[in-house]
Amino acid sequence: MQRIALGVSFNGRPFDGWQSQPSGNTVQDHLEQALARFCDRPGVNTLCAGRTDAGVHGLMQVVHFDTPLRRSEYAWVRGTNSFLPPEIAVQWAREVPAAFHARASAVARRYAYVLLESPVRPSVDNGQVGWVFRPLSQPAMQAAADALLGEHDFTSFRASQCQAHTPVKTLRRIEISRRGAYWRFEFEANAFLHHMIRNIMGCLIAIGSGNRPPEWMAEVLAARSRDAAAPTFSPDGLYFLGPVYDAAWGLPERTPAFDWLP
Amino acid sequence: MQRIALGVSFNGRPFDGWQSQPSGNTVQDHLEQALARFCDRPGVNTLCAGRTDAGVHGLMQVVHFDTPLRRSEYAWVRGTNSFLPPEIAVQWAREVPAAFHARASAVARRYAYVLLESPVRPSVDNGQVGWVFRPLSQPAMQAAADALLGEHDFTSFRASQCQAHTPVKTLRRIEISRRGAYWRFEFEANAFLHHMIRNIMGCLIAIGSGNRPPEWMAEVLAARSRDAAAPTFSPDGLYFLGPVYDAAWGLPERTPAFDWLP
Repeated sequence: MQRIALGVSFNGRPFDGWQSQPSGNTVQDHLEQALARFCDRPGVNTLCAGRTDAGVHGLMQVVHFDTPLRRSEYAWVRGTNSFLPPEIAVQWAREVPAAFHARASAVARRYAYVLLESPVRPSVDNGQVGWVFRPLSQPAMQAAADALLGEHDFTSFRASQCQAHTPVKTLRRIEISRRGAYWRFEFEANAFLHHMIRNIMGCLIAIGSGNRPPEWMAEVLAARSRDAAAPTFSPDGLYFLGPVYDAAWGLPERTPAFDWLP
Repeated sequence: MQRIALGVSFNGRPFDGWQSQPSGNTVQDHLEQALARFCDRPGVNTLCAGRTDAGVHGLMQVVHFDTPLRRSEYAWVRGTNSFLPPEIAVQWAREVPAAFHARASAVARRYAYVLLESPVRPSVDNGQVGWVFRPLSQPAMQAAADALLGEHDFTSFRASQCQAHTPVKTLRRIEISRRGAYWRFEFEANAFLHHMIRNIMGCLIAIGSGNRPPEWMAEVLAARSRDAAAPTFSPDGLYFLGPVYDAAWGLPERTPAFDWLP
């Protein structure tokens, strides 16, 4: 058997999230169906670096699977893509040692949230950005974000259905930037709880728009109660940038630039 | 009667182009239905600055219509948007003199084409960018583009169903830039023929990828025959940036920045 790792990008809008469902319309379902067709045998089981909710996009999800088939890395990419819907594409394939594990080998995960600040809702970018109509304060949001950095019990930002072993995670970085009407929030942690970023975004927006003071974020964190935080914010603007692995695995280092503006 | 001008942005993917069709699923159809509902009377007829094909997006289409109703500019925006599909939004409304005409008053039109250069097809940005898998040469494309600048008979780049009075147009600007894997081509002319930009794009890509020499563009132009040019390129990456009007009309000057990257 050979273990293969794939880098996969997808627009989450038409799918029911990452993880397999009876609907058969998740990104994992489509990917495994495409791999089964390319391999001409059923039952290709993939394991991913981080599951994403319905509506969340992926720039570089990483999965691994084991196969007796020998194909060139180029053939894995091109062959699988020929069976995938147009919103999902394998970006690269690598043969990896059996010790590599897409989830367990990841030392960090990176996400970005893109947010339109405008009196008018999104249109051209519908489903691809979150939206606020009230102006946001960058200093207030950055002060609040800084209160979350480091190792904490993030229970206040955890969905009730979260399956993580522990609510204690290490949040290494929250970078807030702006270009035109669009805000970008980049997050890096060893791992994230279910809905953690969308719940943090809800709180950052409450603070950025002046509904709450910056110090409120530390109170929410300390409360260790989901009732303390703001409602879960929209998945539309959330992008899984991808996992981070030790360079020794030899995988493509990071997400290719996704830079475009009409 | 009061003449109202609206700035409208839309993602062209779910619609059958701009102009009204029996399907009722064009951007104009949805806009006029929304205006009729907001005005609570049927038969609001709009006239636009430039019709767009199915799949082409609009950052700032401008339309005008006449109405006996008096509403605030803010009410026109907000009220109309409440009846529009999520991929279409009115960005602004202005009361304008009866002498203003969305098409006839426009002294120029601006478009952008966004193109992904990658061995792998689009996914996250499916339907919103064109795609080439072979690397493109910027100097070759710019030399070819320069041959099109000025006043010319653009018959070679004109669709057979084009309804323009004359194939002679003045192309003022083609700017080619690149960011990461994405090329951006910006076009400005007094007016464009049907499919003109998509036909020019087909030729630029043939030249940029080395299939044709840069001098071929001047030959295609001189031939004044549609048979001389490359096939019409995909609508996916084409964005109508909007018309240009004399500042005396007092309309919002240009497209608000559409800058975002996850």
